Amino acid sequence: MSANLSDQAGSESRSTRQIQAQIQTLGKRARKAARLMAAAEPGDKNAALFAIAEALVANKDSILAANARDLRDGRDKLDRALLERLELNDQRIEQMAEGLRQVAALADPIGGITDLNFRPSGIQVGRMRVPLGVIGIIYESRPNVTADAAALCLKSGNAAILRGGSEAAHSNQAIAACITRGLTDADLPADAVQVVETTDRAAVAAMLHMPEYIDVIVPRGGKGLIEFVAEHAQMPVIKHLDGVCHVYIDDHADVDKAIAIAVNAKTQRYGTCNTMETLLVAKSVAEKILQPLSQDLHQAGVELRGCERTRKLLGPSIKPASDADWAEEYLAPILAVKIVDNMAQAIEHIETWGSHHTDAIVTENVTRARAFIRAVDSASVMVNASTRFADGFEYGLGAEIGISTDKLHARGPVGLEGLTSLKYVVFGDGHVR
Amino acid sequence: MSANLSDQAGSESRSTRQIQAQIQTLGKRARKAARLMAAAEPGDKNAALFAIAEALVANKDSILAANARDLRDGRDKLDRALLERLELNDQRIEQMAEGLRQVAALADPIGGITDLNFRPSGIQVGRMRVPLGVIGIIYESRPNVTADAAALCLKSGNAAILRGGSEAAHSNQAIAACITRGLTDADLPADAVQVVETTDRAAVAAMLHMPEYIDVIVPRGGKGLIEFVAEHAQMPVIKHLDGVCHVYIDDHADVDKAIAIAVNAKTQRYGTCNTMETLLVAKSVAEKILQPLSQDLHQAGVELRGCERTRKLLGPSIKPASDADWAEEYLAPILAVKIVDNMAQAIEHIETWGSHHTDAIVTENVTRARAFIRAVDSASVMVNASTRFADGFEYGLGAEIGISTDKLHARGPVGLEGLTSLKYVVFGDGHVR
Repeated sequence: MSANLSDQAGSESRSTRQIQAQIQTLGKRARKAARLMAAAEPGDKNAALFAIAEALVANKDSILAANARDLRDGRDKLDRALLERLELNDQRIEQMAEGLRQVAALADPIGGITDLNFRPSGIQVGRMRVPLGVIGIIYESRPNVTADAAALCLKSGNAAILRGGSEAAHSNQAIAACITRGLTDADLPADAVQVVETTDRAAVAAMLHMPEYIDVIVPRGGKGLIEFVAEHAQMPVIKHLDGVCHVYIDDHADVDKAIAIAVNAKTQRYGTCNTMETLLVAKSVAEKILQPLSQDLHQAGVELRGCERTRKLLGPSIKPASDADWAEEYLAPILAVKIVDNMAQAIEHIETWGSHHTDAIVTENVTRARAFIRAVDSASVMVNASTRFADGFEYGLGAEIGISTDKLHARGPVGLEGLTSLKYVVFGDGHVR
Repeated sequence: MSANLSDQAGSESRSTRQIQAQIQTLGKRARKAARLMAAAEPGDKNAALFAIAEALVANKDSILAANARDLRDGRDKLDRALLERLELNDQRIEQMAEGLRQVAALADPIGGITDLNFRPSGIQVGRMRVPLGVIGIIYESRPNVTADAAALCLKSGNAAILRGGSEAAHSNQAIAACITRGLTDADLPADAVQVVETTDRAAVAAMLHMPEYIDVIVPRGGKGLIEFVAEHAQMPVIKHLDGVCHVYIDDHADVDKAIAIAVNAKTQRYGTCNTMETLLVAKSVAEKILQPLSQDLHQAGVELRGCERTRKLLGPSIKPASDADWAEEYLAPILAVKIVDNMAQAIEHIETWGSHHTDAIVTENVTRARAFIRAVDSASVMVNASTRFADGFEYGLGAEIGISTDKLHARGPVGLEGLTSLKYVVFGDGHVR
């Protein structure tokens, strides 16, 4: 169905029920497909990934036509940044296809058995990596997520139900057609990846309320979407909330490294979750570091907001930082700066105000580095490296479905492994207790 | 406080608020203690475990006196099985102490870094095993859980808030005093393990609603408790629901092994979650297996409930099995029996009616074994071994906090590793992107 049910005023509860029934049907099909996918051969999964890539390139024109329709529909409703993210072109379609081929090239994560050891009883116990089952992904604007998420779910032997934003509905359906084509070409179940057609919000609620058909939900998008999903989902959620990342420049920091890392962590990209939002500097090196660093940041167009000591050092032209600044994920050319007495105070600040995403220390002192790494309770903790490295590709995961700020299951960048689980396998020869 | 606030009629909302405030206070203390515990040396944690063991033995008399009080209070309210689980004696206290010493002897799970590899960018990326933070444990009747759970949380560098059942309140407090003593003796924070004193149910609700202070909840007890916790907890839950375990006897089974495994899986203990509840037998071997097996089970006092074909084979004295039987966790000397056409039908039955806990195949055929292991989506899948082996000690985990039927994070028997998470650690030398 392609009609937007939210437009059918006056019969809302009826249409809501219809949508629930549709989503339930997708769920049942996904559950069935998941069992076939769990047993699929690595070669068949890779063949499907290559076939989808081929279909994307072959159907470039129809994808671009669908995308043009979304862009036209969004022209008056969406801001420039959103339109930019929505837009596809030859290069972006080629990138999507290349992404699929790269996922095909990754090692197959499924079915491997590790730690298969004999126990005193005589049984042999190991753990086998297996798919989670059905993954629900709820995302916004970027149509390339449709292809990326499908690729990761497929490679990891899961079935997927994808629900993109209404603003990209036509683009997503055009990409979905290529995915179905690729799955069918490789003799894998077409229902292994289903893209929800209706753009009604009731579809999201329906997905969140069927734990019998969806094993885990991955929301990708703005904070509002993620909080909504986390609050209402009846199944586990792999989610990414704030990225309030810190760089702490220690007494024993190398000045050149410190400045290079701080500039890179703040300015390489402003809108990413692993961008530094607060800089902490040990007071013993504050003058030496902050004088040149503030000039570099100023030149890059970054606004500084400082604690009292920072303002005393750099002058009253620096805006004062309030508690709200310590908690803020700016996602913009703004940096909060605080001078601390020592590492303990820096760690205290990070644990109090941070979001447990990514935090770094710059130091030449190995004892400090060891202590910082132990004490900071974040998904990624770094020594002498830019926070911008916290990323699935940089970590060697090959691809990522997101970055998790949860502690259980997947933590930090989530690649194929995060879409799998380990079950115990036991081999005996008639063994009993 | 030791007064039972639920008895103070007429001021319920006020007392509820008081309890919430008390539990919040425990939460704040636990969060603080968790940071110290995360950095605690293995030697100090082990010293605390030994000191707690010593305190339990040294204070045996006061523990037994407290337990006698619980037994007296419960005499008219609790059934015999519950009273039996509640009762402590010299031997059980010695077992608790021995359990603590065994946990001390396990390898320390915290701080180890694995997979520390160089990336093309020049950074080195690895994963460090770290505690989860604060573990909340809500349990019923058995006072030994107080010591067992405390030991596992302590060894894994977490802080714990333990909430035992009201029927064991005095026993739990006596054990708690020993835990506090042991922690203090080893110079670890006494708040690392806190036992909730109030027996009011409002304390449970208060725990479930403070995700800022409790990182994960582990409910241990009856299904009602676990479902209540899973529904209301605002933090992740490591939970164990049903154990509807199957043994499938394949066409290619060795008859002697099949009978030995089936008898053991059903009769070694009736009340455990890894006990077989349904037996599936391939029709080609049904007569050969079921005739002698039914006699063995009959002698052991097990009631059989069979499908039509089973009743045709064994006679109408066998009760008919309904759909409700396939879904039932009897926890009793009752076994449902079904004759299936082939392995595919057995797997279909397990996936339809099972609880994804533990399922076994008995076969000499390696292709069947491989296919069964891949297709059955359970926490433990076994070949030629009794389902009764699904247990943390048998698997070599050293100890277990429970058996998880969830797919995310911990699956199957949960030992120390289930109470930890992995964070990424990155080492550079001034590296930027």
